[in-house]
Amino acid sequence: MGELLLSGGRLVSASEEFEADLLIREGRIAAVGRDLESAGEVKDVSGLLVMPGGIDTHVHLEHPIDRIGIETADDFFSGSVAAACGGTTTLVDFALQRKGDDLAPVVEARRALANDKSVIDFGLHVILTDIREETPAQMREVIDEGFTSFKIYMTYADKYVDDASLLRILETNADAGGLTYLHCENDCAVSHLIHSHLSRGETEARFHAPSRPPVVEAEATYRAIALAEITGARICIAHVTSKRALENIERARYEGAQVVSETCPQYLTLTDACYSHADEAAKYVCTPPIRSMDNQEALWDGLRRGSIQQVASDHAPFGFKDQKLGAPDFTKIPNGVPGVETRLSLLYTRGVASGVLSRSRFVQLVSTNPAKMFGLYPQKGSLAIGADADLVVFDPTQEAEIRHTDLHHNVDYTPYEGMPLQGVPVMTFSRGELVSEDGDLVKDAGPLKGRGEFVVRRPVPPELDFSALF
Amino acid sequence: MGELLLSGGRLVSASEEFEADLLIREGRIAAVGRDLESAGEVKDVSGLLVMPGGIDTHVHLEHPIDRIGIETADDFFSGSVAAACGGTTTLVDFALQRKGDDLAPVVEARRALANDKSVIDFGLHVILTDIREETPAQMREVIDEGFTSFKIYMTYADKYVDDASLLRILETNADAGGLTYLHCENDCAVSHLIHSHLSRGETEARFHAPSRPPVVEAEATYRAIALAEITGARICIAHVTSKRALENIERARYEGAQVVSETCPQYLTLTDACYSHADEAAKYVCTPPIRSMDNQEALWDGLRRGSIQQVASDHAPFGFKDQKLGAPDFTKIPNGVPGVETRLSLLYTRGVASGVLSRSRFVQLVSTNPAKMFGLYPQKGSLAIGADADLVVFDPTQEAEIRHTDLHHNVDYTPYEGMPLQGVPVMTFSRGELVSEDGDLVKDAGPLKGRGEFVVRRPVPPELDFSALF
Amino acid sequence: MGELLLSGGRLVSASEEFEADLLIREGRIAAVGRDLESAGEVKDVSGLLVMPGGIDTHVHLEHPIDRIGIETADDFFSGSVAAACGGTTTLVDFALQRKGDDLAPVVEARRALANDKSVIDFGLHVILTDIREETPAQMREVIDEGFTSFKIYMTYADKYVDDASLLRILETNADAGGLTYLHCENDCAVSHLIHSHLSRGETEARFHAPSRPPVVEAEATYRAIALAEITGARICIAHVTSKRALENIERARYEGAQVVSETCPQYLTLTDACYSHADEAAKYVCTPPIRSMDNQEALWDGLRRGSIQQVASDHAPFGFKDQKLGAPDFTKIPNGVPGVETRLSLLYTRGVASGVLSRSRFVQLVSTNPAKMFGLYPQKGSLAIGADADLVVFDPTQEAEIRHTDLHHNVDYTPYEGMPLQGVPVMTFSRGELVSEDGDLVKDAGPLKGRGEFVVRRPVPPELDFSALF
Amino acid sequence: MGELLLSGGRLVSASEEFEADLLIREGRIAAVGRDLESAGEVKDVSGLLVMPGGIDTHVHLEHPIDRIGIETADDFFSGSVAAACGGTTTLVDFALQRKGDDLAPVVEARRALANDKSVIDFGLHVILTDIREETPAQMREVIDEGFTSFKIYMTYADKYVDDASLLRILETNADAGGLTYLHCENDCAVSHLIHSHLSRGETEARFHAPSRPPVVEAEATYRAIALAEITGARICIAHVTSKRALENIERARYEGAQVVSETCPQYLTLTDACYSHADEAAKYVCTPPIRSMDNQEALWDGLRRGSIQQVASDHAPFGFKDQKLGAPDFTKIPNGVPGVETRLSLLYTRGVASGVLSRSRFVQLVSTNPAKMFGLYPQKGSLAIGADADLVVFDPTQEAEIRHTDLHHNVDYTPYEGMPLQGVPVMTFSRGELVSEDGDLVKDAGPLKGRGEFVVRRPVPPELDFSALF
Repeated sequence: MGELLLSGGRLVSASEEFEADLLIREGRIAAVGRDLESAGEVKDVSGLLVMPGGIDTHVHLEHPIDRIGIETADDFFSGSVAAACGGTTTLVDFALQRKGDDLAPVVEARRALANDKSVIDFGLHVILTDIREETPAQMREVIDEGFTSFKIYMTYADKYVDDASLLRILETNADAGGLTYLHCENDCAVSHLIHSHLSRGETEARFHAPSRPPVVEAEATYRAIALAEITGARICIAHVTSKRALENIERARYEGAQVVSETCPQYLTLTDACYSHADEAAKYVCTPPIRSMDNQEALWDGLRRGSIQQVASDHAPFGFKDQKLGAPDFTKIPNGVPGVETRLSLLYTRGVASGVLSRSRFVQLVSTNPAKMFGLYPQKGSLAIGADADLVVFDPTQEAEIRHTDLHHNVDYTPYEGMPLQGVPVMTFSRGELVSEDGDLVKDAGPLKGRGEFVVRRPVPPELDFSALF
Repeated sequence: MGELLLSGGRLVSASEEFEADLLIREGRIAAVGRDLESAGEVKDVSGLLVMPGGIDTHVHLEHPIDRIGIETADDFFSGSVAAACGGTTTLVDFALQRKGDDLAPVVEARRALANDKSVIDFGLHVILTDIREETPAQMREVIDEGFTSFKIYMTYADKYVDDASLLRILETNADAGGLTYLHCENDCAVSHLIHSHLSRGETEARFHAPSRPPVVEAEATYRAIALAEITGARICIAHVTSKRALENIERARYEGAQVVSETCPQYLTLTDACYSHADEAAKYVCTPPIRSMDNQEALWDGLRRGSIQQVASDHAPFGFKDQKLGAPDFTKIPNGVPGVETRLSLLYTRGVASGVLSRSRFVQLVSTNPAKMFGLYPQKGSLAIGADADLVVFDPTQEAEIRHTDLHHNVDYTPYEGMPLQGVPVMTFSRGELVSEDGDLVKDAGPLKGRGEFVVRRPVPPELDFSALF
Repeated sequence: MGELLLSGGRLVSASEEFEADLLIREGRIAAVGRDLESAGEVKDVSGLLVMPGGIDTHVHLEHPIDRIGIETADDFFSGSVAAACGGTTTLVDFALQRKGDDLAPVVEARRALANDKSVIDFGLHVILTDIREETPAQMREVIDEGFTSFKIYMTYADKYVDDASLLRILETNADAGGLTYLHCENDCAVSHLIHSHLSRGETEARFHAPSRPPVVEAEATYRAIALAEITGARICIAHVTSKRALENIERARYEGAQVVSETCPQYLTLTDACYSHADEAAKYVCTPPIRSMDNQEALWDGLRRGSIQQVASDHAPFGFKDQKLGAPDFTKIPNGVPGVETRLSLLYTRGVASGVLSRSRFVQLVSTNPAKMFGLYPQKGSLAIGADADLVVFDPTQEAEIRHTDLHHNVDYTPYEGMPLQGVPVMTFSRGELVSEDGDLVKDAGPLKGRGEFVVRRPVPPELDFSALF
Repeated sequence: MGELLLSGGRLVSASEEFEADLLIREGRIAAVGRDLESAGEVKDVSGLLVMPGGIDTHVHLEHPIDRIGIETADDFFSGSVAAACGGTTTLVDFALQRKGDDLAPVVEARRALANDKSVIDFGLHVILTDIREETPAQMREVIDEGFTSFKIYMTYADKYVDDASLLRILETNADAGGLTYLHCENDCAVSHLIHSHLSRGETEARFHAPSRPPVVEAEATYRAIALAEITGARICIAHVTSKRALENIERARYEGAQVVSETCPQYLTLTDACYSHADEAAKYVCTPPIRSMDNQEALWDGLRRGSIQQVASDHAPFGFKDQKLGAPDFTKIPNGVPGVETRLSLLYTRGVASGVLSRSRFVQLVSTNPAKMFGLYPQKGSLAIGADADLVVFDPTQEAEIRHTDLHHNVDYTPYEGMPLQGVPVMTFSRGELVSEDGDLVKDAGPLKGRGEFVVRRPVPPELDFSALF
């Protein structure tokens, strides 16, 4: 590949920003400095921010929803294109273990599928749903192959893992260095509330929210942290949405608990008012549901204070008209919203441009922390010398508006339609190669398809103190 | 029965104390005042405290332990004699539903058993273990008959109630006014830890404690409160033993949660040092286990601050030599310690005589609060005019020492052997009748046997705010 | 005086309520019971509540405001008449030490003044403003004469006591058993803010509130508690108005701090919206100022939870038209609102009738707790045998509306005009003598004038734990 | 100066570490990268850590103690030599305003003094002690000249600033961008306690500690934060030593308060046991005093959690034999301990080598955060391109022991005598010039004297969120 020199930009790392040239050699960051010289291509990025490319550890591409018999609407190609156009350079998707499955074939098949399509690098979490005698050994096996994180659902009938199984998973990970990544809602409580609503004839989309109130999230979050403590395992709480769940995390971290957490743009920019229009409510059905404004404010505080360590998209795209509308009751609406492409610009706009977060904090939340938490660091998530040249060049002054028609996902809407932006990605480099420019692919997609590589992730290093990761 | 005048005593109620005569007529308190006159018997109680008799809502008499195939060592006769000699005038024991049982016959049989033997009045909680379609209706039925509280075990394989069933119980009680009384430990976590210890060959009695650490209690306590909130039910947490569980209760009450709680003398006076002597450790095996000193101190703070509302005994007597010693591993030791007779004098000594608690707080903790929480009030737990003349006369200056040989229970030890006392019960009146004097029955036990009556308890009144000052 | 029998009422004490007759003999409670007999007068109070008469420890009658050169508008006669008509049977007013004053003559003069006029019993706090070498000795002297509490202002140029002097007062009280009763606002901060407002030409009444924001109250509250801790003294925080100050008190009590606190009806029923009408704003100028609704809600929570121990009136009446209106700027408006007569019915209506507080909690807040905290107990504040028969008989079902024209204070408005009431005092007895009935004096005021007696208050008993349940 | 290439080291920044060469040109960092080339000198630093040089914002060199009539024992020469040998490259010392002083001449004189002697770069805080009408204007004047921070003492008779003056300082800084740096102890409380001890004849050195207990620090800390909030100013709390003070800071930051804080090695490595040997106690007399172990543990937690942002030395050296010993009472012992040279190695040993802190956290605490907080950033405290090449090269594997005889300060002891070290500075570069190697100056001190330059510091940028600086 030779060399590429990004010249005159403002480099933003997880702790600092300064003006410097950045030299890429063989797809890696070779040097940063003043007045660097290169025999290769030189790109003037004056006035622009050069940051580690986004890492999105929570996306669901061509993800089967067995209970409804459908898949999410993006495949690894359309989804990775959308990601790249939004400034994201690494995705971590999921390999789903169904009942009876062994892990090795599951992850192998999924890796092959992604490998053929993804335009950017990717990793895979393993969703465990069937914990058997042989599971711990199989977990160690896939950890060795770079599948170092395990997603656990504390709710959903088809994926639910009970406390006994969760303890075995945590115990195995505590020893093997795997990370347990949890969807925290009390399944019995959700079922109880769903049953209550349906039995009262409350079937419309808006009843999705009260059937999964903050207390069910807060309870499961508390429990997950407690069980992790018993085993000595480190955990990551997916999509924190409520003040109460966050307070449980904060109190535990204050006492030294080894827990990190994530929230998502939908919880940071929307409120439960979205459910008030019957015609539109289904668009916003995701789980946990969108919360009230005071919960949203608490999440921003959590980002500011360091209590929440990453912002991922939980990209789970379903067509509004063909998949979400018209369900007989709210439990039949597929859960999720698209968001892989809008994550960075939304967080930059609402967080940095509005003055709530510093640019370095932004880099931590969308790139460096995910890399550290999920075993991609220092290969990804960093401007360090030697790191992959996965970069996003951002124009912090450019104003825009989110329009579904500008996006690359494979669905018919965005929940953020019309939202103003200040700060957008203008170039995305994957291992030194420019893949997207000005919000679009740089060339015909064809040649890019499948260029993304599987990243062999590492176990979380024992010395990384999760309670001190901000 | 006519009249009985207690003359010259110092009356102590839940909020005040003052010198006055107290007139009993037909087994009830008829008047309090200066220079009262009576045609009946007059008993001089100058220099003594006249208080509502103790109410102990947590005793296990002739209680079957199915997993081991034994019963607790006291029956309703020996247990109620011990209670009376210790200043307690009402017991609330348990009727155990086994798998397949309907509730009505269970409570009927248990009531009959107690009715034939108890020397003091009694009520019965229902232990629910098999929640079926018809359970809510059966609960309402027994509530109507005065069995208004339901004990739920969140642990123990043979009694364990899962979250789904617990939600149905809570929902029923929220509507019917029943009280849910919970043993809070995470069953999966306990099983996991027991398995870990046994698999390492750690079978001695002392491993009982680390197999049930504070975190498993704190987790289940948090969950119980969360599930109660979802249903709008009011709950009572049995035997709080740890700072962490207590903090969860305190935070929840601060936010208005309808939860009250209990601790027991063993957690207030012993520490986990009791497990350090291999020969004796089995004596102290009870669940939750005895905790460290900082936990003990937190419990005293909880009593002082009002975070814990009652002190019950959790009297679960097993013979040391014949039942507790010699188990092949710690999980086979029957759980529990005797304590129904020593409860008042221990709490008075360590709480009041030591200056930590006021006398009125003592009355609240051992009598008035239990009466209010468990539907016995104002018939029991009060010096109010019209209340049952269930009274304990206490000598606050008398010093003594706990000796197993002075006690009336049917086991071969007391965990409090040799503990000094200041303040002991000198007379116990049940509905105006003197049943115990100077630590012994007033006469041959024969005629007293079966004089105790079943108390038809009431649902907790809706306006009683469980989160308020108690 | 002979006997008086109140027959058939519902007696409400600080912990219980029950139906009983109450017999008064020689001005004291002689007996309570069923079917009591008396040779004296019998009054049927069936269907009514019989409670300890209100104790108001925070009133300012004929109180000089030196910096403006005026006095509060009620004297000890009109003020005590208003109190009695509102169900209050004991007032504790203030004796003001001016610079240079010795304490003995100050309290003597004030006692004589009150003695000639008050229709109900009274005590006096000493306001210390000039702490000199001889002050500790003089404090001990007046404590011995029954002036056992000392009011300290942490703000107001003419009364301000600095930390050094406050420490000496606290140290003296820690040893002598006096109670330090504090007005907590940071004087420098208030002056700073007043100066800021005035320098911007913000002179209207509504700027009173932002010149004394919650943070200045919270700071001084924290400091008072800290200084008290250093000396081992127990303290009472007057008129808590804000969530932040309350949280400081709650945290400190949680850790065992010996601090109790008070709030007032104006902070429980009004909000800072009262300052929005320029023509009326001056009516509501009191210090600390009326706060926002979320502060009001926090105070109700504090009452419910037991964090705040008493509700006093801080009755500081000034004529609206002649004293409050027309000040050149907000700092010249005399501070205070009238409220001695409306305290009980307002708290009953908003607290008890609305379901937030139990009747016993009401009795604690307006009578029993003030009596215990300020050394009047058990002579006052109780239905105990032997206590003064200071009683209020309340009709809990009677509805009314607050109208200034019905009140007995000597000003031209009430801040509560038009507020609906449910529950009003219908009889007030002072030492067994009926002084008010149906909201008015029972007879010509003349003979009642001066019947009130000075109450020799006691030091707070060392064993009373101020951090405990109250 | 030309170029210098540090080759093969492990670079550690505030967020990352990686292997790279670092190129220095004209005293600044010109590039970092793999296989960099340079025409200048090349120094192999393989196996070593290259970090931003230490910044110590809390040193007292030739600092007059007027109340005792002495000065600290180090002057700007010996002190800066000690600093450099310990890996520190920038000092911020103090210019003391005495009563009556104008600020400009004070800072000018002090700058000149330091300029002639310091071997490393330096800045100066202004100690304000005399707040007059013209003070705000004078503050703006010195801010413009690079003296952008103001030290305020809330205690010490000769330096004490009252709340009114503090408010004016804070208000000025809020507007002008100056930083208020506070010594928080309640002066009245300290005086009160000192008086108590002395009046009981408790004059020995060990009574220094109880005369300044945590509560006096916690109170002043709370007050400082409250007053800062009123004015909108940002503040830094110097030398936090106690759990209680820290909790106040943490709670305030949680709510968004603009407060950062500092602790010092003496509070992180010593305990109050140091006062138990009468012969040695005077060595450890510093203010606030050394605290108990639980306080020390809380400080480590604070560092780990991000609640405390910097570790400075508070180097205040006094000869043990000639200055500290033999004082007639503890109040006459000059306050302070030496520590400028041992700061980095102690924190590295106890923090990083022990596994409590990451290396990046270490860099934040000793260099990057102080630079950001005190207006030195990005010139100092960073490995960013363009930053001054103020660097410390650390050998993380080298073991050593602190011995007073190895140190360069001008006193006869170190409080850390005999403490083992793991990780020591092996080279210190100041603007690219090697000034110290292997714990000693690189050459005769002579030529280095006065080479240090005054750093014109900037006001804290308005967008720097102090509540989100970890």
